[in-house]
Amino acid sequence: MSRRRMMRLGMSMRGLGYHPAAWRHPSVPADGTLRFEHYVRSAQAAERGLFDMIFFADGIGIRERDEPKGSLARSGYELVEMEPMTLLPALAPLTKHIGLVTTASTTYNEPYHVARKFATLDLISGGRAGWNIVTSWSQAEAQNFNRAEHLDYDTRYERAAEFVEVVKGLWDSWEPDALIYDRASGVFYDESKMHLLNHKGKHFQVMGPLNVAGMPQGRPILVQAGASDPGREIAAASADVVYAAQDNVASAKAYYDDVKGRMAKYGREPGALKIMPGVRTVVGRTREEAQAKFDQLQDLLDPLVGLARVYASLGDLTGFDLDGPVPEPQRPPQVRSSTERLLARARAQNLTIRQLYQQSVAGGFCLIGTAQDIVDGLQEWFEAGACDGFNVLPTHLPESCEDFVDHVTPELQRRGLFRTAYEGATLRENLGLKPHLNRYSAAGAVSASAAE
Amino acid sequence: MSRRRMMRLGMSMRGLGYHPAAWRHPSVPADGTLRFEHYVRSAQAAERGLFDMIFFADGIGIRERDEPKGSLARSGYELVEMEPMTLLPALAPLTKHIGLVTTASTTYNEPYHVARKFATLDLISGGRAGWNIVTSWSQAEAQNFNRAEHLDYDTRYERAAEFVEVVKGLWDSWEPDALIYDRASGVFYDESKMHLLNHKGKHFQVMGPLNVAGMPQGRPILVQAGASDPGREIAAASADVVYAAQDNVASAKAYYDDVKGRMAKYGREPGALKIMPGVRTVVGRTREEAQAKFDQLQDLLDPLVGLARVYASLGDLTGFDLDGPVPEPQRPPQVRSSTERLLARARAQNLTIRQLYQQSVAGGFCLIGTAQDIVDGLQEWFEAGACDGFNVLPTHLPESCEDFVDHVTPELQRRGLFRTAYEGATLRENLGLKPHLNRYSAAGAVSASAAE
Ligand SMILES: Cc1cc2nc3c(=O)[nH]c(=O)nc-3n(C[C@H](O)[C@H](O)[C@H](O)COP(=O)(O)O)c2cc1C
Ligand SMILES: Cc1cc2nc3c(=O)[nH]c(=O)nc-3n(C[C@H](O)[C@H](O)[C@H](O)COP(=O)(O)O)c2cc1C
Repeated sequence: MSRRRMMRLGMSMRGLGYHPAAWRHPSVPADGTLRFEHYVRSAQAAERGLFDMIFFADGIGIRERDEPKGSLARSGYELVEMEPMTLLPALAPLTKHIGLVTTASTTYNEPYHVARKFATLDLISGGRAGWNIVTSWSQAEAQNFNRAEHLDYDTRYERAAEFVEVVKGLWDSWEPDALIYDRASGVFYDESKMHLLNHKGKHFQVMGPLNVAGMPQGRPILVQAGASDPGREIAAASADVVYAAQDNVASAKAYYDDVKGRMAKYGREPGALKIMPGVRTVVGRTREEAQAKFDQLQDLLDPLVGLARVYASLGDLTGFDLDGPVPEPQRPPQVRSSTERLLARARAQNLTIRQLYQQSVAGGFCLIGTAQDIVDGLQEWFEAGACDGFNVLPTHLPESCEDFVDHVTPELQRRGLFRTAYEGATLRENLGLKPHLNRYSAAGAVSASAAE
Repeated sequence: MSRRRMMRLGMSMRGLGYHPAAWRHPSVPADGTLRFEHYVRSAQAAERGLFDMIFFADGIGIRERDEPKGSLARSGYELVEMEPMTLLPALAPLTKHIGLVTTASTTYNEPYHVARKFATLDLISGGRAGWNIVTSWSQAEAQNFNRAEHLDYDTRYERAAEFVEVVKGLWDSWEPDALIYDRASGVFYDESKMHLLNHKGKHFQVMGPLNVAGMPQGRPILVQAGASDPGREIAAASADVVYAAQDNVASAKAYYDDVKGRMAKYGREPGALKIMPGVRTVVGRTREEAQAKFDQLQDLLDPLVGLARVYASLGDLTGFDLDGPVPEPQRPPQVRSSTERLLARARAQNLTIRQLYQQSVAGGFCLIGTAQDIVDGLQEWFEAGACDGFNVLPTHLPESCEDFVDHVTPELQRRGLFRTAYEGATLRENLGLKPHLNRYSAAGAVSASAAE
């Protein structure tokens, strides 16, 4: 009997959740992003629900601008929060099985630091570390790192590709059996199994070796988030997991086939990469209850915060009646195509200003309904070959995470789509990925010493 | 009755301890630097002993060179280990009171990352974070960070001074009462109490604000380690703690008076800075037992590893009889003065090669004896006004740490030199330091808005 293909699930745990009004929800600790217990509670709930991993998006600065004026002080969204690479190690001793994945930017970091920190997280957690590779894009981050403007797109991706190669090289510095610890003879490591990287590239010169070794996963899991052509190449060449943003099953399937199709030229099998689109879920015992839960959040969305969401496209609409029609843009559009798309939608559906910004909050792949409804939606994508699983974006924490675990997970299990116990000891094993093969062990001793 | 001045104590926990043969000691887990339990055990022992803090030195690369050839594979010292900024957060939930201090280099980091990570550690640990400010010096580290040679001394210290100012500025981004979380009105923070740094300096341009707030200590503790004139200025201007390297009470006192004397011009009182020299301790129930413990480690020191210690001064001595006299340098000395000092000592004491390198391992302030002997030594320095406490450098872990806690700590307490319970909730309180005053709250609302 062939084993059924199982869905992979990640729980996105940034901040107070993915609805911008989450902080005003009565069940949410408004100061939760600065309280360790808040993160512990969601992480432990996700582990109870047998999620493959918790996942942290990240920004190295406050990206939202105060436009319209006064909106930032009312937003409470991605403003102040814990730095995830410092937070995840603290969650490691309080969890046992769940993968610990966070974002680190290749634009504002150095590969030696990233290699070292994720290797350490892998050791501390017993093989549960994952790195989400991003290139960053915001001006706010650039301005915290000695730049007036963010780096241009091509340079960012060129740097990212080289960055990833260096990190992978550093992670292979020590073959798995390099460390001998032979007290009697006094030999600590086998010299032939330690390798200098000696990387000399356009963006980085890194000698190595890494001063960490012995990662339980061989090396941490690589996650990639980025949809452009160079982003897809990095994913096909190196990633174990892709975090994708897709809003319908057809485009998700096209994306899935495209990325998997690029893997062969890197000598990789399609199964070596798990593609997990984001999905927002709101579950209720009835559809009405689910909708009411979502409406409660929408009602808590401060108008200024809502207007901030459409500011980039439409300019300052604070003078207008929120329940009247959407006016012409109040300033020259920044990205003409998005402004035109937004306006066309407003006109076609005859939306008010309030309806327009409320819609923007529910964008992407969004499922509101009973556990059956939600699993129907997930199953459709999964069985259409549009994904290998999902990255769940809870509206507010910890409640939406607990709701998913208490209601959606059991229904997924009932249908045989999801595990009933963790299969392995490491994230790599739970994702169903093959063990990592150190490049030098793989190549054999002769070419390994030639490579030094 | 005036309260007696109490000694401050830090436990240096890098690696397997400070004796280079520690990994061969029968009580030491030779693979301990890659095992989380190893660090947990020492940290919990130090907390049981009421230490103010555990302290991690750090290097971003393997600094030791393989000279003489073959020595590196036998050294097992500062080779592979956990990255401390990732390790400390994981120790936070497994400890309650002890300060968590680690090194981060101003030469190979960016201030926004450092400010964010230590602020997060302060939140996770409930106010126990400390940053040891260093400038790094080794070529090995430079070569992991895109440089052939390390940065020259003056540039490094100029960068360090600016780096510290930026980090302090970022930590003050949010006044303590800036975050309101007013669900009803929808106001998350008070706009007048969030401050952009907008730093434009020679080495850094950083806009801010920091995206972390609400640190229990106001800001993390600043530790400085560096003895030169610019190092002393940074300490006098900004540090809460100095980790000093001193080998006799007279020079320690001169150093102490000098650094404290520099504080007035920054408007700081001498008590605002705690100076803690490093001390190596080996304790036994008798002097003979203590000496035997130390000799056991010395006997485990592999000759090649010993010769590596004098290589920089004397060149490759592998051809010579280890129990014969110290020969002339086998290559042109790198630092003439240290070579000359070493040779003069060898000649004056008629040392063999083996005795010379064994001495180098016991260098600095080193106390071997009974608990009484050790406390006598510590008390002498403390009461001479040469220090405010000590940073203990255990020879091997966890045993030397547990030895100190079980034998030396009770004797310190018996003499009224050390606490019998933690006084405060934060590291700042336990060190007896005043609360941190945010620069904007301190200056009052008017000048605060002018500073923006
Ligand atoms: C699903 C998804 C998640 C992302 N998460 C982050 C993140 O957490 N932090 C970040 O700086 N960038 C993030 N990015 C941005 C990417 O790194 C990249 O800068 C951006 O998507 C533009 O590249 P692309 O054109 O290849 O998609 C994310 C992108 C996607 C598609
Ligand atoms: C007691 C002490 C501890 C130090 N610890 C570290 C360390 O952990 N990592 C590091 O890179 N440098 C460390 N340093 C080096 C200093 O940052 C500095 O580079 C070096 O001491 C030279 O500067 P100075 O002339 O001001 O002492 C330490 C220095 C001292 C005195």
